[in-house]
Amino acid sequence: MAGKELDGFHFEQMHGKDRVRVARVWRARDGRHFMVEWNVSISLFSDCIAAYVRDDNSDIVATDTMKNTVYAKAKECTEQLSVEDFAILLAKHFTSFYSQVSGAIVKIVEKPWERVYIDGQPHEHGFKLGSEKHTVEVFVKKSGAVKLVSGIEELSVLKTTKSGFEGFIRDKYTALPETRERILATEVTASWRFPDISAVQLKMPNLHFLPVNISSKDNPAIVKFNDDVFLPTDDPHGSIQASLSHFWSRM
Amino acid sequence: MAGKELDGFHFEQMHGKDRVRVARVWRARDGRHFMVEWNVSISLFSDCIAAYVRDDNSDIVATDTMKNTVYAKAKECTEQLSVEDFAILLAKHFTSFYSQVSGAIVKIVEKPWERVYIDGQPHEHGFKLGSEKHTVEVFVKKSGAVKLVSGIEELSVLKTTKSGFEGFIRDKYTALPETRERILATEVTASWRFPDISAVQLKMPNLHFLPVNISSKDNPAIVKFNDDVFLPTDDPHGSIQASLSHFWSRM
Amino acid sequence: MAGKELDGFHFEQMHGKDRVRVARVWRARDGRHFMVEWNVSISLFSDCIAAYVRDDNSDIVATDTMKNTVYAKAKECTEQLSVEDFAILLAKHFTSFYSQVSGAIVKIVEKPWERVYIDGQPHEHGFKLGSEKHTVEVFVKKSGAVKLVSGIEELSVLKTTKSGFEGFIRDKYTALPETRERILATEVTASWRFPDISAVQLKMPNLHFLPVNISSKDNPAIVKFNDDVFLPTDDPHGSIQASLSHFWSRM
Amino acid sequence: MAGKELDGFHFEQMHGKDRVRVARVWRARDGRHFMVEWNVSISLFSDCIAAYVRDDNSDIVATDTMKNTVYAKAKECTEQLSVEDFAILLAKHFTSFYSQVSGAIVKIVEKPWERVYIDGQPHEHGFKLGSEKHTVEVFVKKSGAVKLVSGIEELSVLKTTKSGFEGFIRDKYTALPETRERILATEVTASWRFPDISAVQLKMPNLHFLPVNISSKDNPAIVKFNDDVFLPTDDPHGSIQASLSHFWSRM
Repeated sequence: MAGKELDGFHFEQMHGKDRVRVARVWRARDGRHFMVEWNVSISLFSDCIAAYVRDDNSDIVATDTMKNTVYAKAKECTEQLSVEDFAILLAKHFTSFYSQVSGAIVKIVEKPWERVYIDGQPHEHGFKLGSEKHTVEVFVKKSGAVKLVSGIEELSVLKTTKSGFEGFIRDKYTALPETRERILATEVTASWRFPDISAVQLKMPNLHFLPVNISSKDNPAIVKFNDDVFLPTDDPHGSIQASLSHFWSRM
Repeated sequence: MAGKELDGFHFEQMHGKDRVRVARVWRARDGRHFMVEWNVSISLFSDCIAAYVRDDNSDIVATDTMKNTVYAKAKECTEQLSVEDFAILLAKHFTSFYSQVSGAIVKIVEKPWERVYIDGQPHEHGFKLGSEKHTVEVFVKKSGAVKLVSGIEELSVLKTTKSGFEGFIRDKYTALPETRERILATEVTASWRFPDISAVQLKMPNLHFLPVNISSKDNPAIVKFNDDVFLPTDDPHGSIQASLSHFWSRM
Repeated sequence: MAGKELDGFHFEQMHGKDRVRVARVWRARDGRHFMVEWNVSISLFSDCIAAYVRDDNSDIVATDTMKNTVYAKAKECTEQLSVEDFAILLAKHFTSFYSQVSGAIVKIVEKPWERVYIDGQPHEHGFKLGSEKHTVEVFVKKSGAVKLVSGIEELSVLKTTKSGFEGFIRDKYTALPETRERILATEVTASWRFPDISAVQLKMPNLHFLPVNISSKDNPAIVKFNDDVFLPTDDPHGSIQASLSHFWSRM
Repeated sequence: MAGKELDGFHFEQMHGKDRVRVARVWRARDGRHFMVEWNVSISLFSDCIAAYVRDDNSDIVATDTMKNTVYAKAKECTEQLSVEDFAILLAKHFTSFYSQVSGAIVKIVEKPWERVYIDGQPHEHGFKLGSEKHTVEVFVKKSGAVKLVSGIEELSVLKTTKSGFEGFIRDKYTALPETRERILATEVTASWRFPDISAVQLKMPNLHFLPVNISSKDNPAIVKFNDDVFLPTDDPHGSIQASLSHFWSRM
């Protein structure tokens, strides 16, 4: 955030527009249509303390203007481009067009519209929503420096075997039995930093599938379960986050 | 619902268990695994007015027992079966096992776990979550009569052209221009009734993609848009529901 | 729905507009402001089969027109009115203004904006969002007949004692112990039908707070719990639905 | 995150348990009950690279153990305590009980259960869910150093007048008219850092209430609106984030 000293305090702020939804269609000469749907968030760093303390908005880019800019820039893109290129183009616009804007963050989530196939043939203008989403976040400074992170989210995967968990710490709070056979499932949120791949960040919560084991000391009749009936549950869940990076990327 | 006269009023009630989540794995001899994940809701119609007016639960099937039954029945299914067959099996159990249960409704939503392909080959035990969901709702009476409705939900489709809307009523509340070219998109919820197909029900809200048209009388500089940049929006949206049925299915 | 015979099938349809969000402010002469925020859904029953089979929209009320009507009618209400009165007014407009509309359903959910109190005094124009929501659903026929249902939703209540569950059926699927002491909690959805109160409908799922009991045969060190630490859970949950009605209301 | 060099890469990871839901009841001698419901997330920083590269879990605290610890510690709290104190107590347990844990982050969201009043009197054991939530996030290091942030979230407020927006930058992307009269509404997420208040962070997205203005060049009949009928909308929305801090808190 852009910092400022104010009456003995340090004041930081950014402002922007979230959830600007835009779809762009490109029509090729052969009749095929290409389309994307993007959900865009913009945050600008700028010196606009006057708006907070003196009712002076003369340095303020209205968030409605930011929204219009998304549509105008989408229009200007007459050739299909990647969500990464659009995010950079948009962020660079704000830092170069407005003198008081020192930095811009643009985040975009792309909806997974996929071309429909009919009888094995790609349809010219029909699409269907798929599953995992492509994400991008770019930070552009006034100097032109670009920090770009791409990613995916909402990718759920599962395997029914070849996962175990044993040998962990056992103490007075431990009740979990060891296991050499379990369902392993997660919803992957992954991101990676450019140029080339300089760093990878992974967030992989457990999607738990607990082996069902109904027990009651008074009721031995309930059937025995042996790792074939599972209780999927969301509350609570294990979480694992990790990142891997080149040394030079952290300098 | 099961009706009852009570102090001059008509009283109806049902009780059950919602959101019983169960996963079932079947392992074939050739090493391949098959799995399903179901979210089950159960409602029982029974004469249990004593529980409401006399603190007498002796006719009450505990909803915890219903939950256990889902797991026990899933376990008993040693061969893979369709979600329809499991719903019928479960509902029939409740109406036949408990004398006071006169009817049972079982609804199941199946999560779209799909087998993963690696280098074009199906993986033995790896799965990935897809998009639209398969649904089933079955109503079984004590007599054994079955009413079965299958369906899909959350199937989003879109086409970028060959849709229009013109010739509709124009009155003093009408501002919408006619169009011969627009994006048409919807999230389909469809269901159909058996045996054979006796009725089809469709719910198809518009997923609106509005042509962008930024206007300001003071600012002619904003670029002209011609049906290539769109604003996707959820609030408000048009809704269309329709059903088609054989005469005999309505008798 | 409005029915129609079509090539040997029975065809029914309705169309409308969902999620029309509108806020209305009324300003009293003494400086106080009053405001409501409503989320309106409209469904019209009409004979518009020509639109489905002959590309003829001449009997179609555009859903965009329905949306505009909500705003125009809200404007015409120069005096504050109840959400019930607005729903009736709106539904009656559609059945009387359009000759081909035989019936209209209007559903409204009112957001619980509450006046703010500062130092015990009501603020003139400040509001804060509360919790449970007021709902209304009205069905108006061409004849002018009105069926009105009011309600509340998202009202969560809880008591920490004086609830039990015992004496229920015990069979081979039962593992639940009896209890004379438990937390009882639910999220109430209630509705009632007019004139006077002719019927009441209640939907009261259990919000389960399970007594915590961590057990492990190998680990006796985990502390004993006695009904003071609970696990709140959403999956699965018991559901209870009931209605009470006058006989004459069911004729 | 806890860093580690690994085959020429820098590797960081943390693991924990999210969405551990716990309720705690305290019973006073005078018959009054007190209760809280907390949703707890735990992240531990520890040196457990062996688990990633050598299948060695001997340094791993199972996330199931973390969950049990929440319940055991809640049980040990025989006197009611603040959510801040519970978060600190829990985080300090992990850093002191496990030698390999170098730091712990505990986040808790408290559900706003409020005592019910009947005829103006507080009920002994009845509660009702309110609106905004209390949050806390604490970071405890092995050394015992504590960084504590408290906050609220989901507090929606609105005023119907005395807000304007004028004098902002007008450029070729600007279409927004200036206004001296509008509804101002936001959903506040606020947090503050201890000891005393060393820093305050505010996140205040606009909840837009757009003045309705239906226009159509062909249809002048639609009523004129003058700042009394509004369209509430979520997509897109302006976002404002700011923080204020003492200099010494940033050292």
